[in-house]
Amino acid sequence: MSATLYVGISELVQPHADAGSSRDPLSVTRDAALLVRNGVVVAAGPRELVRSVPDVAAAEQVDLGGRAVIPGFIDSHTHVVHAGERVDDLARRARGETYASIAKAGGGIRRSVRHLAEATIEEIAQQSLPRLDAMFACGTTTVEVKTGYGLTPELEEKHVAAIELTAKSVKQQLLPTLLAHVPVSPTGIEREDVVRAWHDTVIPKLAKRVRYFDVFVEDGAFTADEARKLCGYARSHGLGLKLHVDQLRDGGGAALAASLGALSADHLEHTSAVGARALADTGVLACILPGCSLMLRDWPNARALREAGCEVAIASDCNPGSSPLVDLTLCGLLAATQCGLTLDEALWGITRGGAKALGLHDRGRLVPGERADLVVVDHTDFRAIFARPNRPPVHRVIVGGLPK
Amino acid sequence: MSATLYVGISELVQPHADAGSSRDPLSVTRDAALLVRNGVVVAAGPRELVRSVPDVAAAEQVDLGGRAVIPGFIDSHTHVVHAGERVDDLARRARGETYASIAKAGGGIRRSVRHLAEATIEEIAQQSLPRLDAMFACGTTTVEVKTGYGLTPELEEKHVAAIELTAKSVKQQLLPTLLAHVPVSPTGIEREDVVRAWHDTVIPKLAKRVRYFDVFVEDGAFTADEARKLCGYARSHGLGLKLHVDQLRDGGGAALAASLGALSADHLEHTSAVGARALADTGVLACILPGCSLMLRDWPNARALREAGCEVAIASDCNPGSSPLVDLTLCGLLAATQCGLTLDEALWGITRGGAKALGLHDRGRLVPGERADLVVVDHTDFRAIFARPNRPPVHRVIVGGLPK
Repeated sequence: MSATLYVGISELVQPHADAGSSRDPLSVTRDAALLVRNGVVVAAGPRELVRSVPDVAAAEQVDLGGRAVIPGFIDSHTHVVHAGERVDDLARRARGETYASIAKAGGGIRRSVRHLAEATIEEIAQQSLPRLDAMFACGTTTVEVKTGYGLTPELEEKHVAAIELTAKSVKQQLLPTLLAHVPVSPTGIEREDVVRAWHDTVIPKLAKRVRYFDVFVEDGAFTADEARKLCGYARSHGLGLKLHVDQLRDGGGAALAASLGALSADHLEHTSAVGARALADTGVLACILPGCSLMLRDWPNARALREAGCEVAIASDCNPGSSPLVDLTLCGLLAATQCGLTLDEALWGITRGGAKALGLHDRGRLVPGERADLVVVDHTDFRAIFARPNRPPVHRVIVGGLPK
Repeated sequence: MSATLYVGISELVQPHADAGSSRDPLSVTRDAALLVRNGVVVAAGPRELVRSVPDVAAAEQVDLGGRAVIPGFIDSHTHVVHAGERVDDLARRARGETYASIAKAGGGIRRSVRHLAEATIEEIAQQSLPRLDAMFACGTTTVEVKTGYGLTPELEEKHVAAIELTAKSVKQQLLPTLLAHVPVSPTGIEREDVVRAWHDTVIPKLAKRVRYFDVFVEDGAFTADEARKLCGYARSHGLGLKLHVDQLRDGGGAALAASLGALSADHLEHTSAVGARALADTGVLACILPGCSLMLRDWPNARALREAGCEVAIASDCNPGSSPLVDLTLCGLLAATQCGLTLDEALWGITRGGAKALGLHDRGRLVPGERADLVVVDHTDFRAIFARPNRPPVHRVIVGGLPK
């Protein structure tokens, strides 16, 4: 059995299982140690305590030189596997053009659909690798990845295949999600046919190759009724549910996610107090996407979500149109500076919060039994991880107990 | 004579000398070439035209493979040479504490003053190098660097020495500025004594080792009268003038900068229409600092500045308290998404705008006679440089005609 004892840990940060109402939902142990065996945390806590664990002497000892250790980041909402850039959309948005006007010029989601259709699976993976490498360098060890630039059954399958191919070459674990993005198709069929295609073909055919099902509920995207139908069917195929809701207006999406027992409701820029309470009451994670807010200049009020009792996860939403970010430390800093979270809540949101938003119980806290996915911060104070977005002070990233 | 002919340029971007009122203050030449001799641009424009320049055949030819070329970025306002991080300040700010409360807890500028006092010159340089390397990787080829964490004559001299030492180890050119930051001193002398020390000692003693003089005009910092006195004196020592103004409220700082004939007025979050017109009328650059706005959630209206006739430069303000950013592409993207600039105006602001804010006539446009400091974008479309903040698609950075 391969075991490693990490010592020289100035601060070991263990997010609480539940964020509760605390603004400090973390436990911090100073002068700590961490014992890892076969990629799993065996013991974590005060150095002397960990040193008293049976068989500790047989472990290889690694001195981290007085640095802080935090769980690897879990990005619970991304579109990171995609082809092409939408530079023209970006330029148009900066000139004040509306989403509708950008779409009319051939931009928006449909441009990414064209890029996906035109690229080979290998090209899509090749273009996605640098983004995932950058995510890893910034400390992200688990990444949810959505399809949704396929629209048709054939191209959605291609998108899944591209995610599968990409996953073989990256250092993190990728968790795929089928995303019913918009109820249109390049071939111009009617929206009821699109919903039927998802129901009759996409979900049954691809459910075994993904973990989650997500649907974008918004004017111009799917209706609540369509979402209910597709989500119920996806659940019957064993998929966890995630929803894009209340991004452009309060459409009652948070309450919908709560009623469906989704793992998370994502976006929430315009969620009402009633919606926030519904999430809190049902334990559905509220997932905010600061990178998207940055681009569209529309911020969710994460403080209000917390005060309503919600647990708040933070994800990058990395995509070619509305969020260019890959760095969860920058997303966390934005959540703090623009959305009202504390730094401790921000760290919870990109670790344990991300895990909960994905229904994962094996990571995000660095407690015994969990995967040893961790970030060694190049500073004694773990909060320094938020002090240098772009180039966060990551000393090393360890996945499954192994430096990568 | 060493000459290089760059070909395979999909787009050569040359910012206009003056931004004027155009939302597209750039010239873009497709299928271009660039001839560089001894670090200076000799010819730039359509490929066939450049190929007809005398002696072009003798130049070494470098094929850039169909990529866009833009001028190297010029960061006209930074505090990048400093010691220590202010992680505790960041955490307090995220909890909603005020500047005053952070200062009371030992934070704010005075914490950086302590860090500077406690570190050796070598340590300050050593800590600053990774930040400057990151700036370079993001395309910044010229960096203004302010003192200001000294406060006393002795420590201001130490700060200058740290900048000089840092400058020896970086790939960019660093241009030092004496900054009269706040009229307090760790030794508790009165503010008139601080002003006198700047007048009688700091400026005359250190003027030869720097290029610019900057003063922070704000409640709690220097008054307009103090700024006038110090600026006049600094100018008599040959220093270009820059001012921090109108950051927390409209204090008439823009008009002050205009009346002093400063190179730039920086911050401008609360500048009035009258102030903006004063800058426009006198040709003083309006320099916005989106990284600081991001942290303090207080954005300047760059669109209004442009509509008043101002030329707008964009700088990182990289500092340990209120702006963690090093990446001018992210600053440019923020200027577009949060402050109302177009992407073309944003590119102007980090190239020619930065040069003008520093009174430099030898860079920022890639026209004949200028330094060959340039960024090769890893994309055919130059605007892609804004599409991936954190990891902008920089293929290579060339300074003085040489890849570094």
